[in-house]
Amino acid sequence: MATSKNYTQVIIGGKVFTLSGYESEEYLQRVSTYLNHKIAECASVEGYRRQSAEMRNTLLALNIADDYFKAKRQGSILEQDMEQKNKEMYDLKHELISTQIKCEGLEQELERLRDENQKLQMQIVKLDVEMRNRKK
Amino acid sequence: MATSKNYTQVIIGGKVFTLSGYESEEYLQRVSTYLNHKIAECASVEGYRRQSAEMRNTLLALNIADDYFKAKRQGSILEQDMEQKNKEMYDLKHELISTQIKCEGLEQELERLRDENQKLQMQIVKLDVEMRNRKK
Repeated sequence: MATSKNYTQVIIGGKVFTLSGYESEEYLQRVSTYLNHKIAECASVEGYRRQSAEMRNTLLALNIADDYFKAKRQGSILEQDMEQKNKEMYDLKHELISTQIKCEGLEQELERLRDENQKLQMQIVKLDVEMRNRKK
Repeated sequence: MATSKNYTQVIIGGKVFTLSGYESEEYLQRVSTYLNHKIAECASVEGYRRQSAEMRNTLLALNIADDYFKAKRQGSILEQDMEQKNKEMYDLKHELISTQIKCEGLEQELERLRDENQKLQMQIVKLDVEMRNRKK
């Protein structure tokens, strides 16, 4: 978004309008294109064409507002999904951390058992040697 | 959303309009309330009041379309965030599974070592008994 005021010429409903504002020309052209599509969409309905200019303007405004409300609703659904996903993520992280802690505990226990194992094997070797010496 | 066509009277810009459509009355009233806020918002700007009726209608439509584009943009950002979150979630699940598999492997190794240790201890006891018997 630009920080200085722009003057942009757009064509809406076949008429040229000069818009002033801080939005970029590219953005204003995109919004105008959308508006022209909306106008064409409305005009394709016979019931719309039969209305007074005032009613047509109101129906057009309602139609755009309907798009806005639908986009907002879509956003709310996404926000709820996001919240749900964040909760799942939190639980997953929790589970991962406790599994990692469990792993560390198992590794320590394994280390201790390996040490014990080695000592026992040495003790057996010692006893074996002792036995053999006695036999002599 | 209702499935049968409704006729709803709403007040927009101080005038009564009868709208027909499949949207609920509650929804149409909410959209109308929003529109009235937009009209009031535009009318509070002196530059807007000085415009022709046609320009005012176009500016109002642009203003609502601007809300729509912003809501849509917000939705796109949320969708991108969601995609990112889904990727993180996938990686986390992957990491959790491999940590769980590692844990299982460690538990099996621990079981094996415990068995081995028990056998070694029994062997020592046997050797001890044998030694003691020989001494007699």
